[in-house]
Amino acid sequence: MTLLNETHDPALRSWVTSANAAGNDFPIQNLPFAVFRRKGSLEAFRGGVAIGDQILDLAAAAAAGVFGGEAGSAAQAGAQDKLNALMALGASAWTALRLALSRALREGAAEQGQLAACLMPQQEAEYGVPARIGDYTDFYTSVYHATNIGRQFRPDNPLLPNFKWIPIGYHGRASSIGVSGQTFPRPVGQTLPPGASEPSFGSCKRLDYELELGVFMGSGNALGAPIAITEAEASVFGLCLLNDWSARDIQAWEYQPLGPFLSKNFATTISPWIVTLEALTPYRLPFTRPADDPQPLPYLDAPANWAQGAIDVQLEVLLQTQAMRDQGQAATRLTHTSYRHAYWTVAQMVTHHTVNGCNLQPGDLLGTGTLSGPTLDQAGALIELTVGGKQPLTLPNGQTRGYLEDGDAVVLRGWCEKTGAARIGFGECVGTVLPARQV
Amino acid sequence: MTLLNETHDPALRSWVTSANAAGNDFPIQNLPFAVFRRKGSLEAFRGGVAIGDQILDLAAAAAAGVFGGEAGSAAQAGAQDKLNALMALGASAWTALRLALSRALREGAAEQGQLAACLMPQQEAEYGVPARIGDYTDFYTSVYHATNIGRQFRPDNPLLPNFKWIPIGYHGRASSIGVSGQTFPRPVGQTLPPGASEPSFGSCKRLDYELELGVFMGSGNALGAPIAITEAEASVFGLCLLNDWSARDIQAWEYQPLGPFLSKNFATTISPWIVTLEALTPYRLPFTRPADDPQPLPYLDAPANWAQGAIDVQLEVLLQTQAMRDQGQAATRLTHTSYRHAYWTVAQMVTHHTVNGCNLQPGDLLGTGTLSGPTLDQAGALIELTVGGKQPLTLPNGQTRGYLEDGDAVVLRGWCEKTGAARIGFGECVGTVLPARQV
Repeated sequence: MTLLNETHDPALRSWVTSANAAGNDFPIQNLPFAVFRRKGSLEAFRGGVAIGDQILDLAAAAAAGVFGGEAGSAAQAGAQDKLNALMALGASAWTALRLALSRALREGAAEQGQLAACLMPQQEAEYGVPARIGDYTDFYTSVYHATNIGRQFRPDNPLLPNFKWIPIGYHGRASSIGVSGQTFPRPVGQTLPPGASEPSFGSCKRLDYELELGVFMGSGNALGAPIAITEAEASVFGLCLLNDWSARDIQAWEYQPLGPFLSKNFATTISPWIVTLEALTPYRLPFTRPADDPQPLPYLDAPANWAQGAIDVQLEVLLQTQAMRDQGQAATRLTHTSYRHAYWTVAQMVTHHTVNGCNLQPGDLLGTGTLSGPTLDQAGALIELTVGGKQPLTLPNGQTRGYLEDGDAVVLRGWCEKTGAARIGFGECVGTVLPARQV
Repeated sequence: MTLLNETHDPALRSWVTSANAAGNDFPIQNLPFAVFRRKGSLEAFRGGVAIGDQILDLAAAAAAGVFGGEAGSAAQAGAQDKLNALMALGASAWTALRLALSRALREGAAEQGQLAACLMPQQEAEYGVPARIGDYTDFYTSVYHATNIGRQFRPDNPLLPNFKWIPIGYHGRASSIGVSGQTFPRPVGQTLPPGASEPSFGSCKRLDYELELGVFMGSGNALGAPIAITEAEASVFGLCLLNDWSARDIQAWEYQPLGPFLSKNFATTISPWIVTLEALTPYRLPFTRPADDPQPLPYLDAPANWAQGAIDVQLEVLLQTQAMRDQGQAATRLTHTSYRHAYWTVAQMVTHHTVNGCNLQPGDLLGTGTLSGPTLDQAGALIELTVGGKQPLTLPNGQTRGYLEDGDAVVLRGWCEKTGAARIGFGECVGTVLPARQV
């Protein structure tokens, strides 16, 4: 676990003045990574760091030789079209680069002249998926989500007996992961209509989002060599926002006995920016469990996991329908919750994933699962908020939603704030539903 | 669907005389692909084609300019360290290369002089995983396996109602796929011992293999653009042997509600050689279903799928324990079955996978699921052969096996033979269980 250091000092200010604005997601205490290029261009993607409303181009900074030593090697690795090489360097290199960036972007830094030439306004940029994702695993770490959704799929047995012992996870689809701005046609497939004895074929009628965080692996492990829980966080590069789009009617018919498949793998959207674990240090909280719940088995247990295993990332979901866009109305908030409510920590996900010998690689992505909070208005999916579509939401413009309709844009946002620390944010993760293809 | 052509002529003979030996897996009618290098060397892997007991080095043949036109481009693509570029070229290029290889390797071919210099004996080679596998999906296409294993996991409900409508599949782990010769430590994890109310942690006690075929995707599809069943086979590069190692005790405790995870992702072993769909043309058979079973929904239905959707690949599983190796005893056969018994075809797997818009990419791997045949002695896993370990097998040397023990090597073999066609084979897929790490 990283400790607070000079890069977290809330008094730091940047010579990129937009970074000092209150409520801004990307102050100098954040320094998240993405891959970007000029919007609409055929330029190569390259790594960048968000600072205020600008992107620091790591390829340009590396070419200019701004950073030396370990930070310089890290900047060079981060200059590529995907961040895998930077992720593979490990925690010492990430820390060195963060410190060098923090010092060079501070007010009065000697590097201002060189680095000012390496900035691009975020509004002129487009982003790519930040890593070659070798494997994508989705977990199921909210006991509130598991209970809410379990009640609908298995009314008599909502929370399965393994939930409080195992960080339940399953493999997802890497090829269909897209970056914020992704659009996708409403999926088509088999469903079993209520009361029917044979399935129907057609477009999904119960399309949903899932509010999650994504965890990008850094250094990984060799096959057969698990990552101990005390080492797990050092292997993690950082977190992003993740929308695990879900076709509930397809899921209900297909998911037994081998789990969700076509109900999930048509699209997954992530935010472009990866906020490093080090940037999240000020927002760590004790990890707690109800007193009556089982204690984690020893391989999932560690003092540091109790002391500060949770992370208070505040999360919200907003919806903007086509009608709202047409009328110039802003997206409306559906949910506000926090990652602090998760039942299993980042370290527990990583350690459990590798305990059998499975190898994680730099750039692999873990999803936390839907991060529903303790109360129903903190739920991270429509299936929970609308009780399976039976209690539709009424939006400010009078439209109602049981599930998503064509043209709906779902916006995820995340940020951390507390007294005595700078507010940092994740930016946005936006995805839009297009009409199904004709079948 | 490809048609019989001159490359399938059983009368063809090669100037590589070992290819003409009876019972040999790699006659000139086969021509499967792998990536290889000299054993124990640091040479780059490159594509090769099996012919008798030799490998034709595609990098050397391409450098020598033996092939021209489309076949030459395909040989160049196949010269790389992974076969993804060749796979991405599509069926026309694969057919052109196969025809050129067949003609150049025939007795009397003018290319003999040039190509003889491009051969390496297979016994001097080592192999790599033949493609960068972006995503790995495992299906569940044997109704016999689904029923046998379902009876043990859900005695009152062995075959779920979706099985005869949906080619059930789930995402597996790409990073832990290894090539024949793979060894792995017995996995460690959580299990719920019989009668216990809380899980235990330790090494797997019910380690199993699963006899499968792997399907390597060729040209793939864009996100949102499904592959119609009439186009599905043209998108497939070829088939290999696949062992989906399974920890049954870990699986039983973890698999609900999201499917198998750590019980499968510690290792998956494939054969080095990929036999192209075109090579399998002579062994196609009608696809049949019991008269009372539902007909496939229209998107999974096509005349060609009925006419020759099945493939008569004969398959066997052999076991060699450590004691057998120590005493110089050959592996003993546990199972002999055929892929012809599968309930869903290759084309149906591909089309179902993409019907929701999911994108498949060149080099993606689909597993067929355990290919158990209609009778219990044709079962493709120990959990079926030993009825959950309760009826252990007695081996020729007197040892017994309920599940796999440390040191056990599992050998998969596959081949096709029939009157009027050449016998072709898949070679072997071998994997060996090492002791668990200390916990």
